[in-house]
Amino acid sequence: MLFKVEMDVNVPVGYDQERLEELKAAEKARFQDLQAAGTWRHIWRVVGQYSNVSIFDVSDNARLHELITTLPLYPLMDVRITPLCRHPSSIHPDDR
Amino acid sequence: MLFKVEMDVNVPVGYDQERLEELKAAEKARFQDLQAAGTWRHIWRVVGQYSNVSIFDVSDNARLHELITTLPLYPLMDVRITPLCRHPSSIHPDDR
Amino acid sequence: MLFKVEMDVNVPVGYDQERLEELKAAEKARFQDLQAAGTWRHIWRVVGQYSNVSIFDVSDNARLHELITTLPLYPLMDVRITPLCRHPSSIHPDDR
Amino acid sequence: MLFKVEMDVNVPVGYDQERLEELKAAEKARFQDLQAAGTWRHIWRVVGQYSNVSIFDVSDNARLHELITTLPLYPLMDVRITPLCRHPSSIHPDDR
Amino acid sequence: MLFKVEMDVNVPVGYDQERLEELKAAEKARFQDLQAAGTWRHIWRVVGQYSNVSIFDVSDNARLHELITTLPLYPLMDVRITPLCRHPSSIHPDDR
Amino acid sequence: MLFKVEMDVNVPVGYDQERLEELKAAEKARFQDLQAAGTWRHIWRVVGQYSNVSIFDVSDNARLHELITTLPLYPLMDVRITPLCRHPSSIHPDDR
Amino acid sequence: MLFKVEMDVNVPVGYDQERLEELKAAEKARFQDLQAAGTWRHIWRVVGQYSNVSIFDVSDNARLHELITTLPLYPLMDVRITPLCRHPSSIHPDDR
Amino acid sequence: MLFKVEMDVNVPVGYDQERLEELKAAEKARFQDLQAAGTWRHIWRVVGQYSNVSIFDVSDNARLHELITTLPLYPLMDVRITPLCRHPSSIHPDDR
Amino acid sequence: MLFKVEMDVNVPVGYDQERLEELKAAEKARFQDLQAAGTWRHIWRVVGQYSNVSIFDVSDNARLHELITTLPLYPLMDVRITPLCRHPSSIHPDDR
Amino acid sequence: MLFKVEMDVNVPVGYDQERLEELKAAEKARFQDLQAAGTWRHIWRVVGQYSNVSIFDVSDNARLHELITTLPLYPLMDVRITPLCRHPSSIHPDDR
Repeated sequence: MLFKVEMDVNVPVGYDQERLEELKAAEKARFQDLQAAGTWRHIWRVVGQYSNVSIFDVSDNARLHELITTLPLYPLMDVRITPLCRHPSSIHPDDR
Repeated sequence: MLFKVEMDVNVPVGYDQERLEELKAAEKARFQDLQAAGTWRHIWRVVGQYSNVSIFDVSDNARLHELITTLPLYPLMDVRITPLCRHPSSIHPDDR
Repeated sequence: MLFKVEMDVNVPVGYDQERLEELKAAEKARFQDLQAAGTWRHIWRVVGQYSNVSIFDVSDNARLHELITTLPLYPLMDVRITPLCRHPSSIHPDDR
Repeated sequence: MLFKVEMDVNVPVGYDQERLEELKAAEKARFQDLQAAGTWRHIWRVVGQYSNVSIFDVSDNARLHELITTLPLYPLMDVRITPLCRHPSSIHPDDR
Repeated sequence: MLFKVEMDVNVPVGYDQERLEELKAAEKARFQDLQAAGTWRHIWRVVGQYSNVSIFDVSDNARLHELITTLPLYPLMDVRITPLCRHPSSIHPDDR
Repeated sequence: MLFKVEMDVNVPVGYDQERLEELKAAEKARFQDLQAAGTWRHIWRVVGQYSNVSIFDVSDNARLHELITTLPLYPLMDVRITPLCRHPSSIHPDDR
Repeated sequence: MLFKVEMDVNVPVGYDQERLEELKAAEKARFQDLQAAGTWRHIWRVVGQYSNVSIFDVSDNARLHELITTLPLYPLMDVRITPLCRHPSSIHPDDR
Repeated sequence: MLFKVEMDVNVPVGYDQERLEELKAAEKARFQDLQAAGTWRHIWRVVGQYSNVSIFDVSDNARLHELITTLPLYPLMDVRITPLCRHPSSIHPDDR
Repeated sequence: MLFKVEMDVNVPVGYDQERLEELKAAEKARFQDLQAAGTWRHIWRVVGQYSNVSIFDVSDNARLHELITTLPLYPLMDVRITPLCRHPSSIHPDDR
Repeated sequence: MLFKVEMDVNVPVGYDQERLEELKAAEKARFQDLQAAGTWRHIWRVVGQYSNVSIFDVSDNARLHELITTLPLYPLMDVRITPLCRHPSSIHPDDR
């Protein structure tokens, strides 16, 4: 089941840079695990922002909640979630 | 070059249904040509709305303008465009 | 899987009253079928508005899209959808 | 009398974690008392947010004010309240 | 039980003036009945707008819904409702 | 001359509680003086918020400015002011 | 007593031009009477808009309501009103 | 050349009061110089706010930028600027 | 003197196409005259919209008002105007 | 390829002034390099704000992202980006 997930990272002015690098490294590792598993299906950077647009493919809402709220950078994030579904005009039977 | 394109279709109450079906058929044909060409790279329906979230892969801004503004349903659409780029953490070298 | 669905019905000034009554009767019949099936799990009126707050319990996003967009009053509606999940503090194991 | 109550919890960056855990434990205890009493009739988590959607069933406005503003997490919350009433199409005579 | 009710009347350009006068006369009669009954406890005009700010005193939410949605001018209105309660600092024991 | 005055009190997380209690006591005393004088004609709490809706009856704009901006809690408040006037349909000649 | 009044004139596409010219002529005459009387104390055009920013000097709120809502172009206007008062730093004792 | 300039002063909770008084005194002196010169042509307080509505009369945009951004209170201000011009209906040839 | 002018053209559904083409031809001619004169200094299309971002170089506000409000497509436009000035870091002494 | 880039600089109250001057000097140097290279094609100050409107001319989205997010003042900025393209009515073949 597909969801558009948009994440903005808001780093407060004066935030500890070492702590931030730790969080970013942990975030990257978590992301790559989820990407390899096919759960975090797509990610793109938003030009000029510390933000991404992502597509998640999950079994249900509860799983999505657990994944998003345990991301290492989650305490610094604003998150917007939009449920999606396959488009009937698509010529790719497995376009996710 | 990648762009998120979000399209909302607003059909006025009382709009001619035959005309609408023609526009939708023409839109579907145009979409499938662009999808086959790899230009309209992804499309998803937004649940509960007459809206989609799409990813376009185009050579430049001018080409995107030409594609969007000549869509058959364009006169009934609100369109929001966001420039994207590849995310450096992605493990898929060709993730578009 | 649970979703909050908020529906506002916007009747244009001068809309044909007979047509509106037909749509409302068809909407009511559809609602009661879905309520009996446990799909449209809750509905409440918003005080002073032609709006409701509903809880849907569906198998997946695609099913929710199909249900909402085929409602008889859908062409007159604004719809807002929010994915929900069970709250871990709840003392009711089946609180949906 | 029914109200939709939407609560967003905003934890400032750097907030004392021990204090937060105390508030959350106290909030959970209060919630479960009110849920057992039938006052906090429903609660759902909003996917991806530290937010809930709740339905309260109270005798009057003043009682609702007292309940909400004395919640342990209230000082960290944004709250939106919407008065509701029973929907006439409902087939469940006691659907609250 | 008290509610602030704010009503904006939006008359479409070209609306039939005779019909409007009928609705306004019916609205005035209904208002005065409710004011005499103590239900529509206060009304003030918003300066420069076709809008009012009102205080309703009703037994419950369902009664308020019935009163507001059957007002003669309701089809031309935008309505915003806010639940209120007595302020503990008030020196007037019956200030409603 | 009547004005609707809406006040939201925003207490920063970690604000000194003793200082807050002093401000609230001073605010209450000032309010009761103004209520006794008929200037702060009505006050209601907004359910679930640290906010009130008030009606002021003052001789002119300058007097209202002086009253509002010298309230003890004013430095923590957001204030919205709307000029009102008597409604011609009112059956109470002195409804203020 | 001073108020900032901001007026936007919204002429629907296809509005009768002769009717519009009549309304504009009547508006101009009314404006010049009020300007001569010192009531409509200032008026400026907003660059690039069919809008003005005005300062009214009136005896009370009710008088302002009567003046604004009887302007010939009022049915096509959006109006925003802000109560003002003299600024204590002003070196002009009669700056209105 | 005329501009409407709207200034909101936002004093952070806990801001040094002595520093604030210095800034206000410097602001007042600067204002009175500019008012005497005819540049800061009008100023009014917004009732109930730490805000003003002003009319500036300057030779060009660059001069306005220099004046506004060097005001002593500018670091605490939100500023909104709207270009204005003379209204053709005005009966005062020099109404600025 | 420089201004950013953003224009959105809103063509109502069902608008007469011949009339629209006439307006667009007249708009183009007017634009090219103003561009040749150096007044309409820059114009860019906004990708995917019937909108442009322009830079005007005019002698004063009144001239800008006259130019914008007499554009052939003005009755179908929403216009937003922002006063600009030269940036002191620019290495081009005549960058307009 | 052209983009409108709007940058607002938000300096927190009490920010270290020496640090700010360093960032501004570094920003100016970077800007002048990019302006000399033709990449940062235009820049204008927004009157009365610590903001600019700029036009960037870059090879692709990824390059724009890299340029913007490494600006020395970027951590204090809000940035809004809008893709542009050449306007077909322009009489300047190289108007960028």
